Amino acid sequence: MSGVEEQTAGTGERRRSRGGAEARRAARTQHKIEQLPYIVRKIPLVTVLDEEGLSIIERNADTILQETGIEFRDEPEALKLWQQAGADVKGTRIRFPRGLCRTIIQKTAPREYIQYARNPDRNVRIGGDATVFAPVYGPPFIRSLDDGRRYATIEDFRNFVKLAYMSPAIHHSGGTVCEPVDLPVNKRHLDMVYSHIKFSDKPFMGSVTAPERAADTVELARILFGADFVAKNTVITSLINANSPMVWDGTMLGAMKVYARANQACITTPFILAGAMSPVTAAGTLAQVLAEVLAGASTCQLYNPGAPVIFGVFASSISMQSGAPTFGTPEPTLVSIAAAQLARRLGIPFRTGGSLCASKVPDAQAAYESAQTLLPTLQCGTNFVLHGAGWLEGGLASGYEKFVMDADQLGMMQVLAKNIDLSENGQAMDAIREVGPGTHFLGCAHTQANFETAFYRSSIADNNSYEQWEAEGAQDAAQRANKLWKRMLREYEAPPLDPATDEALLAFIAKRKAASPDSNV
Amino acid sequence: MSGVEEQTAGTGERRRSRGGAEARRAARTQHKIEQLPYIVRKIPLVTVLDEEGLSIIERNADTILQETGIEFRDEPEALKLWQQAGADVKGTRIRFPRGLCRTIIQKTAPREYIQYARNPDRNVRIGGDATVFAPVYGPPFIRSLDDGRRYATIEDFRNFVKLAYMSPAIHHSGGTVCEPVDLPVNKRHLDMVYSHIKFSDKPFMGSVTAPERAADTVELARILFGADFVAKNTVITSLINANSPMVWDGTMLGAMKVYARANQACITTPFILAGAMSPVTAAGTLAQVLAEVLAGASTCQLYNPGAPVIFGVFASSISMQSGAPTFGTPEPTLVSIAAAQLARRLGIPFRTGGSLCASKVPDAQAAYESAQTLLPTLQCGTNFVLHGAGWLEGGLASGYEKFVMDADQLGMMQVLAKNIDLSENGQAMDAIREVGPGTHFLGCAHTQANFETAFYRSSIADNNSYEQWEAEGAQDAAQRANKLWKRMLREYEAPPLDPATDEALLAFIAKRKAASPDSNV
Repeated sequence: MSGVEEQTAGTGERRRSRGGAEARRAARTQHKIEQLPYIVRKIPLVTVLDEEGLSIIERNADTILQETGIEFRDEPEALKLWQQAGADVKGTRIRFPRGLCRTIIQKTAPREYIQYARNPDRNVRIGGDATVFAPVYGPPFIRSLDDGRRYATIEDFRNFVKLAYMSPAIHHSGGTVCEPVDLPVNKRHLDMVYSHIKFSDKPFMGSVTAPERAADTVELARILFGADFVAKNTVITSLINANSPMVWDGTMLGAMKVYARANQACITTPFILAGAMSPVTAAGTLAQVLAEVLAGASTCQLYNPGAPVIFGVFASSISMQSGAPTFGTPEPTLVSIAAAQLARRLGIPFRTGGSLCASKVPDAQAAYESAQTLLPTLQCGTNFVLHGAGWLEGGLASGYEKFVMDADQLGMMQVLAKNIDLSENGQAMDAIREVGPGTHFLGCAHTQANFETAFYRSSIADNNSYEQWEAEGAQDAAQRANKLWKRMLREYEAPPLDPATDEALLAFIAKRKAASPDSNV
Repeated sequence: MSGVEEQTAGTGERRRSRGGAEARRAARTQHKIEQLPYIVRKIPLVTVLDEEGLSIIERNADTILQETGIEFRDEPEALKLWQQAGADVKGTRIRFPRGLCRTIIQKTAPREYIQYARNPDRNVRIGGDATVFAPVYGPPFIRSLDDGRRYATIEDFRNFVKLAYMSPAIHHSGGTVCEPVDLPVNKRHLDMVYSHIKFSDKPFMGSVTAPERAADTVELARILFGADFVAKNTVITSLINANSPMVWDGTMLGAMKVYARANQACITTPFILAGAMSPVTAAGTLAQVLAEVLAGASTCQLYNPGAPVIFGVFASSISMQSGAPTFGTPEPTLVSIAAAQLARRLGIPFRTGGSLCASKVPDAQAAYESAQTLLPTLQCGTNFVLHGAGWLEGGLASGYEKFVMDADQLGMMQVLAKNIDLSENGQAMDAIREVGPGTHFLGCAHTQANFETAFYRSSIADNNSYEQWEAEGAQDAAQRANKLWKRMLREYEAPPLDPATDEALLAFIAKRKAASPDSNV
């Protein structure tokens, strides 16, 4: 809790010191983007398990932690911390007394936190009734109608940052929006983080592929926000994946340690392809996920009590024919919704879902699967939604067309979350009295007054008559999306960045790049 | 309630007289279809409004009924019945004392009912925690990858009946799966109803385009089920649309009267394109919808107290630019979920949703919109789902590819509705103990034992590697769906139908066709 208060206190400081009014003035002079604030959910939470079901899962998770335990590999400090905390440590295997992890988490981990952006209007609250959408994370390939599928570059990376910046219902710039494989592995994180800072003013994620890359991310944030501000506030949220089943490895723990000790947020996420990394059943998967998160998130608190930590789950099943991951199917949906319930009982923010799909192309399969993942993601109260837009091919490709299609769906989720307007204007009884039976509402005063805001306007859907659609070239959604993302990139204008800050960022990056030879590990 | 008991009593009678065992034996010898029973929902209901919100809508509906009233056109008997029931009838306008419609409905309308099929294994329960999926209803056009878009024929009609018959998660044969425009308007209903009877053994819907066509439907049902059985049981569920705003017309009321008096079920459905047929706001639309349903469903009870009647709503918005209907957007979703809550408070079954879309082709737009409509349809507890599969272009086209794609999604909904298995096998603790950290679950005993039933297997999705997908022709979902529906039609085998019954049906149809000249009204 103290974490949140500290950060809230920090807001005023930052707003004073960084000239919010000036930034807003600058924003007004450029191309207008009607960015939406993060979602504050007004629809009831969707659940699947009752008290009894949740207790079963929690009991089983404690049994896993106690009997089987979790491997902590290549991170001796974690083993030492757990020994001190009262766990049973044998080699790299840690077995936890029942309830210990939960107690540690509930003692210090914040229920919610603010992640600050360089534009204070883009700060996001993560936790509680808030939902924050971030783009796709991780793909080494891109797909577009023009290029088909090819390896991603830093140019693609910048493009996706720009598209996210211009998408009103994407609240967060994300992290590895694609993997810029044209840059050396040991240095690309510098260009990636810089791209988020330079080409967007939304909050962003940090590098996790090595502890020193996490440290670089924190350094860049210190240059951007000021070291004092970063010491007191969360300006980075990063993705720390478990190596399921039941392993936390040194790379991930090392990155987590860097971020936690810098008071930055980590998403502890079991990456689950059920049937391979977890049992084939939802209840079995949930118990394992909970055990892995309990172990990971409590370790985060041992590293730095009070550091923000998120309960994450990446839920997929495997095809029992081919072993390939499947998305948008009912079993992962049930896992995600139940996991959200478990996270609320634990009392930390929750991450799952997004617009996941196995399809290689932005076709009907991609859309069915994405929608069947995204809607439950919102409904179950997910606080941080990675992969909100652009995901294709089980995460192997970031799709340009898919990105803007998904971003349109995110806009719809934002409206859905508002629930029904029950104000007098919403009730519209005057309209019904005015119009009466057998006529229509098109021209009535109430319709005219609410014309602009009445219904969500899709940027992708074609609702015209068949004849008009045909006359306009009989395009499918992907073809329209292709036009849209190109137009967005043409119209993109960078948010203003203080030149001295920019220079300092570039100087740091140049110094770090010069410090070691290029390497692809 | 008495209606349900009567019908339940009828089941035994029917099972004895119609040789269920023989039919099942016959079924076993033919191509195996693993038909699923109707859904019994095990996931919690999704809602949007609280008690206060629902009361506001109900109060406003009563105000509409009392102050504005509803037009009942070209149906003098309804005006007379309402005069006797205590309403204020002036010309064709009926104004209802507050609460009267609700009282009439709650006194006699069944909370749920069984609709019987000619194969007793295909009987469906409509109401309560049951959900029944039926295919698309109404389109004059068809679309396929082969033919593009063209007018539908009776051959298409038969094809869609066959595809619905072969789709495990489609529980109901539906009604106008497409409009066979190659047949005269005044006679095509005979071929349509016969097609449902002949080419499927699932329950079906009746003609509503004229009272005498409704009567023909009832006659065909009497030949199929026996007049005694039909007198006591519901074997037809039919779609009675309001002419929104606030009009019930003579054609629909006439058909409703025929069905209600034959103890057959009617779905009283305001067909709403919000912004045109109702206010632009969800709360305004809901009040009007409730008023229209209260007036329609209570009229059904005046025609025949105890006849099954469903609270229907077809929810769409219009594009405020073009006036065209839009689907899969958040506003109709909110309307549908709230309407389901209103229906439960009223105490009759509910119909909404389906796999609606505005897209002309089975692309990503079609799939996003369909999924965004279908999932809430299931979640809000919809009992009868029309347009479950095949709908394209705002209902103007029945799509072959779309049909099998949607049917696949319906199968996923069926699994989702089962919720999480919390049995010992579901908990899978033995698997977790067996496998342990850092390995995988692919070969463990629990995975092997649950291999067959572990995950939903999509008939459409391609989850293979990119390389394999490319080697197989890089097909999109629509292309795979094209292959699937053709294979299904090739493999189709008609369910056995007693030859004497078939002959009697055909004789009745021939007689009715001979009785009047062809006409296109």
